[in-house]
Amino acid sequence: MRLIADVKNANAVLQWDQETYLPTKGAAFRGQQISTLSEISHRMFSEDELGNLLQDLISKENLSPGQKRNVEKTYEDYLKNKKYTSAFVRKLSEQVNKAFHSWMESRKQNSFSVYEKDLDSLIQLKRQEADILGYEGHPYNALLDEFEKGATVHLLDKTFANLLPPLKNLLDKILNQPPVDSSFLKQQFPKQKQWEWGMELISRLNFDFAAGRQDLSEHPFSVSFNRNDVRITTRIDENEFGNMTWSCIHETGHALYEQGLIEEEYGLPLGEACSYSIHESQSRLWENNVGRSKKFWQSFYPLLQTYFPGQFQNITIDQFYSGINHVQPSLVRTEADELTYHFHVYIRYELEKKLLDGTIGSHDIPRFWNEHYKKFLNVEVPNDKKGCLQDVHWSHGSFGYFPTYSLGSFYAAQFYQTAQNEINNLEIDIESGNTVNLLNWVRQNIHLKGRFYTSEELCKQVTGSGLEVNYFLNYLLDKYVSIYNL
Amino acid sequence: MRLIADVKNANAVLQWDQETYLPTKGAAFRGQQISTLSEISHRMFSEDELGNLLQDLISKENLSPGQKRNVEKTYEDYLKNKKYTSAFVRKLSEQVNKAFHSWMESRKQNSFSVYEKDLDSLIQLKRQEADILGYEGHPYNALLDEFEKGATVHLLDKTFANLLPPLKNLLDKILNQPPVDSSFLKQQFPKQKQWEWGMELISRLNFDFAAGRQDLSEHPFSVSFNRNDVRITTRIDENEFGNMTWSCIHETGHALYEQGLIEEEYGLPLGEACSYSIHESQSRLWENNVGRSKKFWQSFYPLLQTYFPGQFQNITIDQFYSGINHVQPSLVRTEADELTYHFHVYIRYELEKKLLDGTIGSHDIPRFWNEHYKKFLNVEVPNDKKGCLQDVHWSHGSFGYFPTYSLGSFYAAQFYQTAQNEINNLEIDIESGNTVNLLNWVRQNIHLKGRFYTSEELCKQVTGSGLEVNYFLNYLLDKYVSIYNL
Repeated sequence: MRLIADVKNANAVLQWDQETYLPTKGAAFRGQQISTLSEISHRMFSEDELGNLLQDLISKENLSPGQKRNVEKTYEDYLKNKKYTSAFVRKLSEQVNKAFHSWMESRKQNSFSVYEKDLDSLIQLKRQEADILGYEGHPYNALLDEFEKGATVHLLDKTFANLLPPLKNLLDKILNQPPVDSSFLKQQFPKQKQWEWGMELISRLNFDFAAGRQDLSEHPFSVSFNRNDVRITTRIDENEFGNMTWSCIHETGHALYEQGLIEEEYGLPLGEACSYSIHESQSRLWENNVGRSKKFWQSFYPLLQTYFPGQFQNITIDQFYSGINHVQPSLVRTEADELTYHFHVYIRYELEKKLLDGTIGSHDIPRFWNEHYKKFLNVEVPNDKKGCLQDVHWSHGSFGYFPTYSLGSFYAAQFYQTAQNEINNLEIDIESGNTVNLLNWVRQNIHLKGRFYTSEELCKQVTGSGLEVNYFLNYLLDKYVSIYNL
Repeated sequence: MRLIADVKNANAVLQWDQETYLPTKGAAFRGQQISTLSEISHRMFSEDELGNLLQDLISKENLSPGQKRNVEKTYEDYLKNKKYTSAFVRKLSEQVNKAFHSWMESRKQNSFSVYEKDLDSLIQLKRQEADILGYEGHPYNALLDEFEKGATVHLLDKTFANLLPPLKNLLDKILNQPPVDSSFLKQQFPKQKQWEWGMELISRLNFDFAAGRQDLSEHPFSVSFNRNDVRITTRIDENEFGNMTWSCIHETGHALYEQGLIEEEYGLPLGEACSYSIHESQSRLWENNVGRSKKFWQSFYPLLQTYFPGQFQNITIDQFYSGINHVQPSLVRTEADELTYHFHVYIRYELEKKLLDGTIGSHDIPRFWNEHYKKFLNVEVPNDKKGCLQDVHWSHGSFGYFPTYSLGSFYAAQFYQTAQNEINNLEIDIESGNTVNLLNWVRQNIHLKGRFYTSEELCKQVTGSGLEVNYFLNYLLDKYVSIYNL
């Protein structure tokens, strides 16, 4: 399993490089190299000999609970992997590469049509993949399960049905109040200065630079090659302060999880993150529950003012806090506030369901997108770049990924409430800029558990109950009642 | 073969990253990942099925000369590869990783003893490798053959015997003349400014930035993942001008070769460089024959002066030209002048021979090194960092590599003389900063030939005769007679 992990992680290095430093003409061969490594790791992970070894191990009596879980989860992954042919793995990887590059090109040209055909071929392959994996009910269930074990259209429909009406209700109330001022976030913030600020920020959040690095890329992301080499990226908009800052905190949240996994379990389930939604809970917890709280900025705002004295000298911490929590329906998911964010996810979720069951096709995406943004957020999409071309995910073949973003926020709220109950003086810590106790708490309760539990099991283990959307709704309500005087 | 090339090139990406961006704690897992990919590519390249296919192809009648050569060279590589067991490949790769990191550490501590043990184990493995590969005469021949097909101790001894006496004679004459002034090269040259200058320089030498990039590393190197993605690195010394500048030109020479290979032959011998010495001939040709000529600086010196007006305002082009060709026995190979350089190589060659046949061991290296630097260059080695720890090569397991540096200089002189004879107005081109015609000439005569010929055959093909050291000696004589008024 460690050899397989080596190949997969080597492939992750190639992908990291592709999105940070790859020269333009290198794209085609790089795609081919990535496909070859994907094919090799797939072949290694579906060899009969490995299957036999795993079956032998499963029947062993004297395994520790951790060993038992490692064997069971690995066998589960093995059986799933075995369903794919090498040819399909290669085909999918090659199509992802094609789609990724035409997505990049379509963004340059600001036109979805450049991307439509390659995306369509990819969607066909994802439908085939759903058939290969098998599913009950909706074909999308097969893909959801890839990102979130046990997630189904049925469960997610129910979750969103519980969430959206109160969220809409809260949004309407907020929009009826006088808007808070966030215009000071849209001044000129020089690139180099932002970079230095971001580096100090993530360092203070205990990102370990001896075991990772930050670089620039078109689309911020985090990737891990092992717990001692975790890479994050960000992007800098000189005319907007928030963009880079909270992407730094977000990706640091992911990175702290990876840097907190168990070294000795490299390549084994206990050395891996629990799930996509739990991963996202860690980025959201730091980005929002911590990073958009007033307590956090008590110590960080004075520091920030030393980086941008001109821009922030006349802005009080209260104004700053309100501004960074400003609610406003908008076009771009990654720049959305914590409330409207989930409408962005919901629209993508609805779209993916329909793409997967064939109700709509690739060419319908811009129309569907724009109509739903109008309907749910009452915004007009001016062009594809600010519309359906904004996310990289589909070009990576990641259908079923978006819902984990919402689940991540919900888990984050539930975890953070628990942390607040369990850690003495957490609020005082945070006010003084000390997040080590919180980090140790998530390390102990979440990171070090690896993939021992499912998301739901872990949530019960940590918080005493399964996922409940109310934690998140209460968290939002608390925040906005005070900011908007509701 | 293309799949194998994908794996090897993926591994090259991991190695590039290791020397440019890898966080410190990532070293151990990275070493493991590199070993795993080495093992996989070795296994792929020694499968019986591949051997059978190659044998079938070799007996085919209707192959074109290029196809025939591709098959023959591949089969030759295959048979060599087949001699190694997977276990040995992995062991060697792991030991290289260990030695590389203890070399880095020993440089930090400026003490060879930190490195001695790991280097010794590596030397033992290289002796085993010589046995695995087989050889006639000296065991070092087996390793030399890896880097330069057909090179032997016998031939190299003869080459150095022809070279060293006239070189020593020339050196003595020069040292009897008043020294030329090169002190202006040791002013303060700010890092950022040097970087910008280097980037402009390599861009004007037609390095294709859409098919490659330059980064910083501890030790400058070039590496190619395919002809559309060729990476070079440099290092910057703020107190010395020459260090970065000629390393940029040198690595660009390597890169132009790789960027000039045939795309369609990716993974096949015709898509690969001829040999290490021919590769080095390309870096040397640009670095020295072009990049240290007066003609070249006719147009580049005024440009350089715009980057560093303060530093160069009172230095005439004649002073600059003499200064950059200043001959002075010194400690560090990569900073040596074109003449004394070959004593540095010769000392390493002598040392490697003795390490391979067991006459001396790893612990004798500092003593041997320091004695020979005293004997041949009359310099005292003050510490290991400026002595036997200066080169990365041994830590990579590259024994037999150094001689190709000297051979490269000799081939470069012979090629450049031929280019001067064959290209109309080459000197006028170079004087006006236009090196395109020269680049096209080396592309046509050398780069596009791939590995069709051996070094010696290629040399005959291009220049009409096999390698002759006199071209190099005459080139040096010409240069120094005028600079030193001999």
